[in-house]
This record gives sequence, structure tokens and C-alpha cells, in this order.
Amino acid sequence: MDSKIDVFISSQSFQEEDLRGKTAVVVDVLRASSTMITALYNGAKGVIPVADMGDASKISQNLDSSHYLLSGEKDGVKIEGYDLGNSPLDYSREKVEKKTIILNTTNGTKAIKRAGLAEEIVIGSFLNLEALLDHLQAVETDIGLVCAGWKGRLALEDLLCAGNIIYELTGGNLPENVQDGAKVAFGLFEKFGDDIEQAVKTSNYAVRLKDIVSEEDISYCCQLNRMHVLPVMKEGIISDFYGKEE
Amino acid sequence: MDSKIDVFISSQSFQEEDLRGKTAVVVDVLRASSTMITALYNGAKGVIPVADMGDASKISQNLDSSHYLLSGEKDGVKIEGYDLGNSPLDYSREKVEKKTIILNTTNGTKAIKRAGLAEEIVIGSFLNLEALLDHLQAVETDIGLVCAGWKGRLALEDLLCAGNIIYELTGGNLPENVQDGAKVAFGLFEKFGDDIEQAVKTSNYAVRLKDIVSEEDISYCCQLNRMHVLPVMKEGIISDFYGKEE
Repeated sequence: MDSKIDVFISSQSFQEEDLRGKTAVVVDVLRASSTMITALYNGAKGVIPVADMGDASKISQNLDSSHYLLSGEKDGVKIEGYDLGNSPLDYSREKVEKKTIILNTTNGTKAIKRAGLAEEIVIGSFLNLEALLDHLQAVETDIGLVCAGWKGRLALEDLLCAGNIIYELTGGNLPENVQDGAKVAFGLFEKFGDDIEQAVKTSNYAVRLKDIVSEEDISYCCQLNRMHVLPVMKEGIISDFYGKEE
Repeated sequence: MDSKIDVFISSQSFQEEDLRGKTAVVVDVLRASSTMITALYNGAKGVIPVADMGDASKISQNLDSSHYLLSGEKDGVKIEGYDLGNSPLDYSREKVEKKTIILNTTNGTKAIKRAGLAEEIVIGSFLNLEALLDHLQAVETDIGLVCAGWKGRLALEDLLCAGNIIYELTGGNLPENVQDGAKVAFGLFEKFGDDIEQAVKTSNYAVRLKDIVSEEDISYCCQLNRMHVLPVMKEGIISDFYGKEE
């Protein structure tokens, strides 16, 4: 593993130039990353991440309405008139198979857009950790783990996932010469990695949205290696890196 | 200890409202906090933090030139024509006693300015940890630890110091209901707290400025409890909370 690894705690905590030429991994555990992974696992054709409702409706106007689903949240709540919210549990095969998902989400989409100069943008979460690691172990570029965070602040669940990624990539032995952000994420994972679900259940996100986001959702998003799927961004659409070409 | 504790990783990672009514602790280990503590310990009358050279010269125009020193850095280097840089080792009693220091510094000043809505703003570092803890244990407000960071990104040394503060305030037992930022800082301190100097010597700051900032400076700033001084901001001037009134 010769790639340098850096961690950014939110989409506001880096310059777009910081990712030029790197492999960017966008981590939004609760819940955009987990939702995208689930949607692709259940056969969605692709996910188009958008920053706001205006963009979502512009894109949807050019698509046949039987082929796409409008989905997304604002402050954790499904947007009125949308087909789906941002609970990954909604993205069943029955609903999403062969559909393109236009996903409008608060922090995750911002992080993806800000990673535009990266050589490649992939999406990570606990659910697809192994699929992600398989890929990262093979890349030759440096790696930037972009946590979505929350309104520019760090989010424990994202940084914990970044820490898990680094822990696995380094075999649990952090070299001294990694970036500060990688050290911080690694330390957090050493502290809370033994019980990810419990740590995330007491995170700011879980507390803040306890009346809106179910415990079931949070437990779901904390599962390790449930799906061998790697969402990758190409020309504005996210599809599965390991997916078969049609 | 009933106060809630939160940590902000840089001056760009919070809203000014987030600190309203709280006790704000600004942490810029390398080197603004350490420099202010040293200056006050060595008898400086006060420190006026400024955001840029323009502000510095405006303020100095209203002061008798025998009573103040212009000091500060830009990207780690002393500003041309200034009396002092930002190495705390420059702030000897001989140079600073009874002087007002107009301190121009990259990230530390920004953090102080952004903490303007706090009930009280104090300055912390490893050097004055005990003096700071004595005060924080007695405050009745919530506490916001404001790491200066670097250009909006986290800086290991600041977050490590924040972790040390939280570790001491909680007796080493972190309650489950603290904010995400506090958990992150605590985890970092558990990982690297055994050898603060070594951790800081391999931080991004130390590596980035290795040709400009001496190892001696970094070792100095990593010393625990060297000075029972607590810089506190009042009406634009920082003086020692424990200092005798003249």
C-alpha cells in the first residue's frame, strides 16, 4: 500500500484542488452512501446525485417518467412529492430495479460535487467496506477520504468509517508519516471500532434525528460488508464498479 | 462537571451562534496560544490579536511606540519590519515586560474573532493546561473548544490538546452523550497522549514548516503545565485571568 491517504472531515474542509488526481471516497454513512449502495445492490441502473430540488426537476424533465424515481431528503425528511426518501430500507428491489434514482440529499451530494477534480470518485460506507478495500488496495493514486459531515462539521459515523478504512488498509499499524486527518480517524476507530452500532446510535446525527430516522435505519447502515457493490461516479451518474455491462 | 463540551476543528467549522453564551477556549498550540501564554507569563501587559497587517498598523497608530511591540507571522515566517515573530521563545521577559503585543497570526486570530459571541474567551495550550482546567472546572456555562486548525482543516496538535482537556475534565471516562467532536478529540488523545511531543513532531504542521519552525519551538509548545497563566479576552485585549490588577 504505497498510496498516501488523507481524510477530509466535511465537504467544506478542503479545497477542490486537494483531490486532483486522487481516488476520492465519499463517505456519508447516514444515509446517502448507504442508500446508494443499497439501490445499486437491488438493481437500480444508476444514481444521479443532485444538490437541490431545482436540479432534480431539471434532470427529470429529460427522462421518461417510467424510468426514474425522484428521491431524497431535506433535514432527514422525505421531500414532498418524491417517490422515495433517504432511508436505504425503502430501496427494495421491487421499487428500484432498472430505475435511475435522482437522489437529492443534504450533505452527501455536496461532498460528491466538491470532489470533481479527483481521478475517480467512489462511494464508501460500512455496508460495502470489503468491496471498497478490494478496489483501494489496487489503485495507484493517492486516496482522499471525503466525509460528508454535517453543515461543515464532522460527523462521528463518517469519520469512524474513514478510520475503519484506514485501519484495514494499514493492517492496523498506522505509519507515522500519514496526514493529521488520517491519524484522527484511526484514533477514533481504535476507540469505538469494537461496537460501531453503539457508537453511531449515540452520535449527534442519531440524537438530532431520533424522531425522524428509525433505529432500524441506523442499525442497517452500521452493518459491515453486506453488499459487494462499489458505486462509482462516471459522467454524472453513479453505477456499480463491479456491475456487468449490459 | 455538568457543562456540555463541544469541539470545533477549525474556525471555519462552526457558526458564530454555536458559541453564544458558552465559555470558548481557543487552542492554537503551534504557535499563537503558546506565544500568548509565554508573553503574559513574562510580564506582557496584554496581547491584541489582529487578523491582518492593516489592522495591526491601525491599532499601533494610536499607541505610544515605546509601549507596544508589533509581532506576528505569515505562513510561519516573521512579518518584515515587525519586532517579533511567532516563536514563543522570542517572548522573553527582557523583550515583552510591560509591553502590549499586537499579534498578527494566521489561524489563531481568526478563531478568536469568530468566537465573539461566547460569554468568555480564554486561550489554551499544553503549556497552561492546569491553569485552564482550574478555570473550566468552575465555569457554569457550556464549553466550546475552538481549535484554530489550518486553513479550515484540522490540525493534529490542536485536536490533541482539546482531547487532553476533555480527558482531564471527564477523569478519563468519556460520557456517551457528548458531542461527536469531543469523542473524536478524546480518541485522538487516547491514541497519542502518551507521547505528545513525538505526535506533534510528526504532525502536518511540523512537516510542512520543518525549514522554518525549529524543533526546539515544537518541543517547547508540547510541555505540560509550564505556566499558571490563563489568557482571557476582554474588550479586545488579552490579559492574564490570574494576573494581579495594577
